[in-house]
Amino acid sequence: MKLFHLADLHLGKRLYGHSLLPDQKYILQQITDLASLHRPQAVLIAGDIYDRAAPPAEAVELFDSFLSGLEAMGILVFLISGNHDSGTRLAFGSAILKKQGIHMAGHFTGKLTPIPLDGVNIFLLPFVRPGEVRYYLEQEDIVTYHQAVAGILAQTPVASGKKNILLTHQFITGQGSVPLLSQSEISPVGGLDNVDSSVYDAFDYVACGHLHIPQTIGKKTFDTAALL
Amino acid sequence: MKLFHLADLHLGKRLYGHSLLPDQKYILQQITDLASLHRPQAVLIAGDIYDRAAPPAEAVELFDSFLSGLEAMGILVFLISGNHDSGTRLAFGSAILKKQGIHMAGHFTGKLTPIPLDGVNIFLLPFVRPGEVRYYLEQEDIVTYHQAVAGILAQTPVASGKKNILLTHQFITGQGSVPLLSQSEISPVGGLDNVDSSVYDAFDYVACGHLHIPQTIGKKTFDTAALL
Repeated sequence: MKLFHLADLHLGKRLYGHSLLPDQKYILQQITDLASLHRPQAVLIAGDIYDRAAPPAEAVELFDSFLSGLEAMGILVFLISGNHDSGTRLAFGSAILKKQGIHMAGHFTGKLTPIPLDGVNIFLLPFVRPGEVRYYLEQEDIVTYHQAVAGILAQTPVASGKKNILLTHQFITGQGSVPLLSQSEISPVGGLDNVDSSVYDAFDYVACGHLHIPQTIGKKTFDTAALL
Repeated sequence: MKLFHLADLHLGKRLYGHSLLPDQKYILQQITDLASLHRPQAVLIAGDIYDRAAPPAEAVELFDSFLSGLEAMGILVFLISGNHDSGTRLAFGSAILKKQGIHMAGHFTGKLTPIPLDGVNIFLLPFVRPGEVRYYLEQEDIVTYHQAVAGILAQTPVASGKKNILLTHQFITGQGSVPLLSQSEISPVGGLDNVDSSVYDAFDYVACGHLHIPQTIGKKTFDTAALL
């Protein structure tokens, strides 16, 4: 199975008053060209599609065009919201779009349901905060981000006879090790928002977003050396 | 053929600090129930889906849910943007959604193409301003709203052997008569933004939005007395 894994497109971001949209359009065209060449079964996009909750119209138009291009090639898309996205706005049309192979998870709403793809199960976990998970799981003791993700995954039906892939967008750390940070993430404050990578051990591949430098953390299932 | 014709939902509107969303949710549920009962082939929505260009997430969620409900019943949807909408944001996913029977026109981009429905041609004309029409049609003499719409429709292939339906969202007046205004439209200033109804004469039914009181204007093809 061939998959593309993207994250943190931050479409519509402005830096020092300059719009990054022309660069972002250029990059997305390169990805479309690569998808046309390599024909992955699916493109995974692990959150922060947009840079803010109400993105500029041009950013929405660019992402629409990107998705349409993939859909026209018969390439499936699986995507989740990140902390920069409005999950609700991002996932407009999701119930209908999934019939055309565009699977979008804007909000966690109580459980993760596997989406089958050629014998592989794909799970979409949008960015979550402890409060909403506490509410949906009715577990008062969920206080940290780690507990929130662990609480969800403890109830997720990971199939042992199959390969399982998860999309997630959290600040993931590995048994105390510090991940590689670029200068462009929103830095964690106080250390309460990290999720230890061990919670993801049941999965064969975890497509992460949030940290902007390609890296592996925790259980190694894939060599990203070629990406660095 | 049975069609529902809606317009000016203005989802997300606030009046004196109060959100109208609970009322709007109630009304859309009534429309869904009526659609379930009467099973129209299509629902036409003639603009101003939202009350502002960047609508609140709850409004997007409500409209998404409304569309999904219609789509699940196999009812087609044809919609255009109004002057309150961001055409670009509104039409996110349109290239893919039309494959599921949701036809959305966010922006005029140079010509209207008929969408066939059981032998009837449906044309989607989103809200237009003279400047953009002048640009797309390359006609420097387009100054007024009337000239803008007339210019577009002069180039629109209305089929004489078929019924033709148009969705439009403009301030339409009929040979000098004053339309019925409610207290909730943005009132026209100076009279330059009106479109005379004669430009629409080639169509068998024109599904209008913008004015908030049900009415007929110009050529009468339909009796709205029962609606008033």
